[in-house]
Formats: sequence, structure tokens, C-alpha cells
Amino acid sequence: MLTTGGCPKNMLSIKDALDALEGRWKLLILFALSSGPKRFKQLSKEVGGITDKTLSKELKNLEVNKLVKRTVYDTFPPTVEYTITAHGTSLEKVMEELHYWGLAHRKTIIGN
Amino acid sequence: MLTTGGCPKNMLSIKDALDALEGRWKLLILFALSSGPKRFKQLSKEVGGITDKTLSKELKNLEVNKLVKRTVYDTFPPTVEYTITAHGTSLEKVMEELHYWGLAHRKTIIGN
Repeated sequence: MLTTGGCPKNMLSIKDALDALEGRWKLLILFALSSGPKRFKQLSKEVGGITDKTLSKELKNLEVNKLVKRTVYDTFPPTVEYTITAHGTSLEKVMEELHYWGLAHRKTIIGN
Repeated sequence: MLTTGGCPKNMLSIKDALDALEGRWKLLILFALSSGPKRFKQLSKEVGGITDKTLSKELKNLEVNKLVKRTVYDTFPPTVEYTITAHGTSLEKVMEELHYWGLAHRKTIIGN
């Protein structure tokens, strides 16, 4: 087991991951983008409960961490689209495990 | 792939998981406890960079979510120990995937 022994070196990489994914929104945004590129308003609707200011801030941070790509199309008016990168897609297993654990957690705590 | 299609039902369970694990400390605390029960000061040292106030708050929240058990031993002075629960241990795969992704992320972004 990875966690048996709680090796400090493993703790470092988990810290790196948590720093990049910090907060409750980033994984949800990436999850929404995993079904295809989206525009800001569409993304906001799918994630749900996020303010425009927060979504904008989170998208910028995801861009810096190379998890999301922002593309501006030369239309009139200009169209902006957000796409998940290959590095973002590599979070799939993390999301999958969180999904399964979330289901188990709901059973344990919330009870339905 | 779980994430292909970004099914809103999967999004719900991921939200549940992120709500329970919110912030940068909870998984690190659980990871430190995965090597065995620990006292407050020992835990604080292993997690690193966390204030006593925050650690105390996080431990209370982890108790409410049945991820950590707090045991008081009838010694003089009383001894308090924190143990990871079976539900907490069930996060192992999440931590494992975060560990692997953290390593890859360091390579991609930090470059070492």
C-alpha cells in the first residue's frame, strides 16, 4: 500500500497535486470540460453554483497549470472557448476514484 | 471513460467527495494517520506548515465525517490519540492516484 508508512516523499507529491487542484471548483470545471470544449456561460451552467468572478479566476489558474487551454476565435464578436489539455485529461483516474469514493461517502454519512 | 460525457450524476458524487475533503489539509492529515495512530503534536509535525488552530478545526471536521476517530486515554494527564477509520482508509486509491498525478504534474510544470 502506498500509504502504509506515510512516506514523507509521497506526502510531497500529494501536496503538489493538492496545491494545483486546491479548492472545490477546479476538478468540477475539468470534469465539465472532459465532455468537450465549452464557452464560459455553458461551463458556468454545467458546474453550477459558481460565480462568474470565481469561474474566471479558476480558469486562469487552470491555464497557468496547463490543465485548460483558452482559445479565441476571430469571429464577430470574438468567441472564446475552453478546452481540457492532455495534462488535464490525465486527472481522469483521480476523478474516477473521487467519484467512487463520493458514492461510498454518501452511503456512509448522508445515508442515501 | 467515466468522464466522457461529463454525466451530471457523476458530477454530484465528485461534489460530495470534494465537500468532505475540501481544503489542502484533510488528505494530508489522513495520509499521515495512514501509518498509525498519532497524537496532536506528532501529527502537526508530520503534516508540516499547519497551525494548531487549523489542525484542530480540520480534525473536528474529519471526525464529523467519520474519517478520523479521537480517543481519550485515562492517563494522568489524559492522552489523546487520533486514528484513521475504515472509511478514511477507503480513500487510499484517491491518495494513490493523487500521488501519481502529483509526480507527473511536477514533471510537467515544475520541471524536476
